[in-house]
Amino acid sequence: MSIKANDPSRQSWLNVPEDSDFPIQNIPFGVFLTRDDVITIGTRIGDTAIDLGAMHQLGYFRDIPLTDDIFLQDSLNDFISDGKKTWRLVRNRIAEVFDKNNPELQEHEAHRKTVLFDMDEIEMQLPVQIGDYTDFYSSKEHATNVGSMFRDPDNALLPNWLHIPVGYHGRSSTIVPSGTPVRRPNGQTLPKDSTQPVFGPSKRVDFELEMAFITTDANKMGEPIPVAEAEDYIFGLVLFNDWSARDIQKWEYVPLGPFLAKNFASSISPWIVTLDALEPFRTESPAQDPEPLPYLRQTGKNSFDISLEVDLIPEGGAPATICKSNFKYMYWTMAQQLAHHTVNGCKVNSGDMMGSGTISGPTPDSYGSMLELSWAGSKPLSLPGGATRVFLEDGDTVVMRGHCKSEGLRIGFGEVRTKLLPAPASN
Amino acid sequence: MSIKANDPSRQSWLNVPEDSDFPIQNIPFGVFLTRDDVITIGTRIGDTAIDLGAMHQLGYFRDIPLTDDIFLQDSLNDFISDGKKTWRLVRNRIAEVFDKNNPELQEHEAHRKTVLFDMDEIEMQLPVQIGDYTDFYSSKEHATNVGSMFRDPDNALLPNWLHIPVGYHGRSSTIVPSGTPVRRPNGQTLPKDSTQPVFGPSKRVDFELEMAFITTDANKMGEPIPVAEAEDYIFGLVLFNDWSARDIQKWEYVPLGPFLAKNFASSISPWIVTLDALEPFRTESPAQDPEPLPYLRQTGKNSFDISLEVDLIPEGGAPATICKSNFKYMYWTMAQQLAHHTVNGCKVNSGDMMGSGTISGPTPDSYGSMLELSWAGSKPLSLPGGATRVFLEDGDTVVMRGHCKSEGLRIGFGEVRTKLLPAPASN
Repeated sequence: MSIKANDPSRQSWLNVPEDSDFPIQNIPFGVFLTRDDVITIGTRIGDTAIDLGAMHQLGYFRDIPLTDDIFLQDSLNDFISDGKKTWRLVRNRIAEVFDKNNPELQEHEAHRKTVLFDMDEIEMQLPVQIGDYTDFYSSKEHATNVGSMFRDPDNALLPNWLHIPVGYHGRSSTIVPSGTPVRRPNGQTLPKDSTQPVFGPSKRVDFELEMAFITTDANKMGEPIPVAEAEDYIFGLVLFNDWSARDIQKWEYVPLGPFLAKNFASSISPWIVTLDALEPFRTESPAQDPEPLPYLRQTGKNSFDISLEVDLIPEGGAPATICKSNFKYMYWTMAQQLAHHTVNGCKVNSGDMMGSGTISGPTPDSYGSMLELSWAGSKPLSLPGGATRVFLEDGDTVVMRGHCKSEGLRIGFGEVRTKLLPAPASN
Repeated sequence: MSIKANDPSRQSWLNVPEDSDFPIQNIPFGVFLTRDDVITIGTRIGDTAIDLGAMHQLGYFRDIPLTDDIFLQDSLNDFISDGKKTWRLVRNRIAEVFDKNNPELQEHEAHRKTVLFDMDEIEMQLPVQIGDYTDFYSSKEHATNVGSMFRDPDNALLPNWLHIPVGYHGRSSTIVPSGTPVRRPNGQTLPKDSTQPVFGPSKRVDFELEMAFITTDANKMGEPIPVAEAEDYIFGLVLFNDWSARDIQKWEYVPLGPFLAKNFASSISPWIVTLDALEPFRTESPAQDPEPLPYLRQTGKNSFDISLEVDLIPEGGAPATICKSNFKYMYWTMAQQLAHHTVNGCKVNSGDMMGSGTISGPTPDSYGSMLELSWAGSKPLSLPGGATRVFLEDGDTVVMRGHCKSEGLRIGFGEVRTKLLPAPASN
């Protein structure tokens, strides 16, 4: 089935500001609370939110096999379960309805009043109920930087890294949408030159610039997903800030990996941009040497050219862009991650989320965490107005943005914006 | 509120075989499929399964504030959300109804036919929809054994181990109930003296003897649970077999912890035995030296005396008991685990599951994994009939059992029984 929704020449009768992340070629999916306090599934064109539940009730999707309540839900899980063919039919139909040459809804004032909302009238929610969340560690530059700082610059990459898309399980219960503030965590840390840990607020709270993909039901337990089919089970992507407490992490993570240093919060952008919408921005991933084992081998363009940036905004201060990176720097592709994750028969469900790992590029201004930008605190970042940072301070707001652009077409993710609040009193 | 259901002198009008794990003082909770293909929440006395959904519809719980459909569900999550007071009211009422001096249901033949099932007429399901699953690593003997084999016998325990109930996140999607067979996983391993990994079936598939506790909604994100209150948020326990592939684990686990070596399967016993039912079997946990940080300090009896054993049954062979251990050997208590897990504000929901980690005792016959029993393959186990094992072979069945006993009262968990099937063809 062709992805008619991607036609770059199509224009919408809805206003799309210049440089908007959400032209009619995007059609992302999200969940929002309307001005009438109704939860619904929706999409967005320009700065207009579109209630897909209302559109479905009004018959706009009558030619697509969908259950009556598929969009009147508080998560996209069931819609995602319907599979790639249905996602395409729905995106193609939305493109058709909002095409400037289509009068159906455009000229039906009563329907428009029911279906359309200004973005500032609604409240975005988590788009999926996340069953399991996995985080990968797939940027070679990030893994090399961390290995150089924490272990040995001459053997920064561990022996398994070039053979395995290394990943580990994270916590779903504390994944929150853009706009939800996050508290600095308390925890155990080991002071320098001491053998006795102390308890208190983390002194090294950090962001990690990541993206995350969301899956559909992919396999039965015991059955692997071949790498060549893996993308069929990826619904779309979001921006992902994997909050980290480096001092807690350092003390706790050997031998079973990060735990409390990560599970106090992770933040995502609320609109899931489909893999279909990203299709025009396919690009090659970095050459892999040594060649991976056969179950991980791919040819062709298996990554996406997505520009990413991070702004840091001190309390009451001006935004400073402290990192510019790109999703295409990832050494391991999403398909390789999903094939690896299931090669042992691990079951993947609709609404599972898989983080890329910190996306660092080759240059110091492309490093995707304060840990790398300040080189473990040894190189303070200068901010406008004379402030400096090695890690994050209370009141800081971190904003991540991402978009693709080529030949006049821009498809973006909006932002994930999070303010860091002080730690709760610890006793 | 007193736990009337625990009255040791009470007898039931239902038959309870001698040495049953399920006297009227147990009253565990589970989910089952009836002979009429209805999913319901139930309990068990002796070898009789009791349909709590049917009992509720017939008015047996009319004096307890419960929603109409609380037991007509495919998971216990909502009932667990109702909180400890409700759990107690329901257990007390079940004890009352099945007391041999109570004629209500005993003498109502039509109701009995609706409510009661032989255990062999029903099919046990997963008792909860598990949101997040965490595995701890809280047996000092197990951590010491593993550290001795994999790292250094002279520094077997890592520096953090005596200060932190070390834990890591696991995968919920592949937790299955007793009776569900498990496939040997394929994966990457590094052959001895090689630098090139190979792909194929794991050669070191292992069980881990654990128990797991199931939580109720415990906190808001950002708020810790004090150690003194933590047990209020624990609904009950199950037996837990944390299947492991040691060769995959060895190659993948540095630096972010075990991943595919664990997430191909974990198996649980289907009846959740409440913390209330275990109350008579409280015992002290091992002395903790050094004293933990204040947020982890406890006094009194914070563990439970639960005898555990593992049988190995080769295909067509006789069962051999290869391990006898006890839950009381755990160095860190469940309350300490839950207080630690939330000290950074991590949110805990109803139906979350937390594994103890492998429960090894002080003597070689109490080690809770093949890894330890065969000392990494160097000491083969002898089985009846002349067979030997270092790790598990295809067709082997592993059965874990657990029970408490004192002064004529026995409260048990039944079993978690799982057959290991061959790996799928790998290409």
